[in-house]
Amino acid sequence: MDEFDSIARLFRPLANAPEALGLLDDAALLQMRPGFELVVTSDAIVEGVHFLADDLPNLVARKLLRVNLSDLAAKAAEPYGYLLTVAWSPAWGEPRRAAFARGLSEDQGRFGLKLFGGDTVSTPGPMSASITMFGWVEAGRMVKRSSAHLGDVVLVSGTIGDGALGLKAAKGQLGGPGAAWLADRYRVPQPRTALRQALLDHASASADISDGLLADSDNIGRASGLGVEIALEDVPVSDAARSTTPNMDAAALIRMVTGGDDYEIVCTAAPEHVDPLIAAGANSEVRLTPVGLVVSEPGLRVSFWGTPIAIDQLGWRHG
Amino acid sequence: MDEFDSIARLFRPLANAPEALGLLDDAALLQMRPGFELVVTSDAIVEGVHFLADDLPNLVARKLLRVNLSDLAAKAAEPYGYLLTVAWSPAWGEPRRAAFARGLSEDQGRFGLKLFGGDTVSTPGPMSASITMFGWVEAGRMVKRSSAHLGDVVLVSGTIGDGALGLKAAKGQLGGPGAAWLADRYRVPQPRTALRQALLDHASASADISDGLLADSDNIGRASGLGVEIALEDVPVSDAARSTTPNMDAAALIRMVTGGDDYEIVCTAAPEHVDPLIAAGANSEVRLTPVGLVVSEPGLRVSFWGTPIAIDQLGWRHG
Repeated sequence: MDEFDSIARLFRPLANAPEALGLLDDAALLQMRPGFELVVTSDAIVEGVHFLADDLPNLVARKLLRVNLSDLAAKAAEPYGYLLTVAWSPAWGEPRRAAFARGLSEDQGRFGLKLFGGDTVSTPGPMSASITMFGWVEAGRMVKRSSAHLGDVVLVSGTIGDGALGLKAAKGQLGGPGAAWLADRYRVPQPRTALRQALLDHASASADISDGLLADSDNIGRASGLGVEIALEDVPVSDAARSTTPNMDAAALIRMVTGGDDYEIVCTAAPEHVDPLIAAGANSEVRLTPVGLVVSEPGLRVSFWGTPIAIDQLGWRHG
Repeated sequence: MDEFDSIARLFRPLANAPEALGLLDDAALLQMRPGFELVVTSDAIVEGVHFLADDLPNLVARKLLRVNLSDLAAKAAEPYGYLLTVAWSPAWGEPRRAAFARGLSEDQGRFGLKLFGGDTVSTPGPMSASITMFGWVEAGRMVKRSSAHLGDVVLVSGTIGDGALGLKAAKGQLGGPGAAWLADRYRVPQPRTALRQALLDHASASADISDGLLADSDNIGRASGLGVEIALEDVPVSDAARSTTPNMDAAALIRMVTGGDDYEIVCTAAPEHVDPLIAAGANSEVRLTPVGLVVSEPGLRVSFWGTPIAIDQLGWRHG
């Protein structure tokens, strides 16, 4: 009965959508939307792995929502709602739980989401949580990862590598004028939901960048049965990142494109769609930058000013 | 890229439904089913809390599927598919992961489920996993928890209290001839999906029993704005449970109805529907037993052969 009361106090204010049935039931109930399909994604986070033990609980909650929103954004889906499962650890007492719920509430409103249900349990280990998030897309219009075409241009949103540097900054391993901005990028990523119409109209394939630009570009290539070439010198890097890395050479750029936690979009577009896509992105105040090409030879290839760079799983070496 | 390969090997064989997009994408894609609604439920498990560290990994997976199936069963929903998030601990190496996937595969086939997607992460803590499961129900027909009526009879499926005794048996704290059967009931619950049509035709409200018959009956009463009275002497108890408890007095029965982990159904039915409901259950080889009444005074009341038993959150005392 304690769990019942705790759920009522923390989460019922977030769950006033009819789908949630007041969190009084064993399940949520989603009605259909004629002409639309339901895009569903899940992402989990673990304390000490995906966030730091001293990160603010409201920011942890907002990041969890946002990494799932980033998946919806990549699929050009309209955010709808989510189920939450949380395993509270002993260190997450009432004040931290309330702050976590407050973070959900803040970003629910910002992104038009509703809480539909979930489960709360206890764990003797680190706090962890997962969200299953729903979005709507017109039937047949979801932008897949597997639908890149030979000759398409590869583009990325925003800037790449801030998340990995931001983690260092959040750990106090990075100083300088850009450190606070980078740490904020790591803690509260900006899901590119504003790109929905641009992707629907112009992208052939799309994914969000959670494991690094290289890995997620490679995933588009693999899923599409094609290869991807990335020109490192074209990868957009923030001023804050440059301020921490005066010599942005190939080694530095490889760190930027393998670091992960960017939550930007990598997408492909036919050559004639590239300019309209960039223009549509700009209209939504999101910069899109061409960084590579879809090619016939399977696999991922990386170059720096024309020089091939060999990549292996553990890192990189000159080819 | 290791994660990509591991997912491909372990989980892609489970995800050949079109909704899963070959697990190649950031998301699953569910098409609508005209005239139906989607019932969605989430349940999480943590090693050392919801299962024991030496439980067989295939049984852990099957239990996780089944506790979610139990929620669908209570809502009279037809099982459809699920998303899985897993946090692997260092102790869960390749053989245990493969056994976990094998357990999912076994029960997927048995219950007509498909894997749609999910997320796998690492944790330094205990292994944990959660499932978000989907079921179909004809529009407007979901059996809710909040729709019990004054004067309805409260019924339960199967036998109550085996899960809690089974946990003791699994821990080696309970011997005797019934111990193995009880441990099996704890490790591999039987979700009452066979009751779907019976509940659709005859039940006014329904919930699955995960927190004990008393707590889940009380939830039906609270959600419906009514009260519930339970007659302890009518609660069905298995032969195995009786064999461990020669003196099945009020104290013993209170342990049975507060122990949890039953994954039976508690439902309500109007008096004229009770016999047809019991007959429909019997046709599906599930016994349904009347154990109480829905009354106007809010709250939960328990009696034993007419004597009121006072219950508090911490346990029970004679009233």
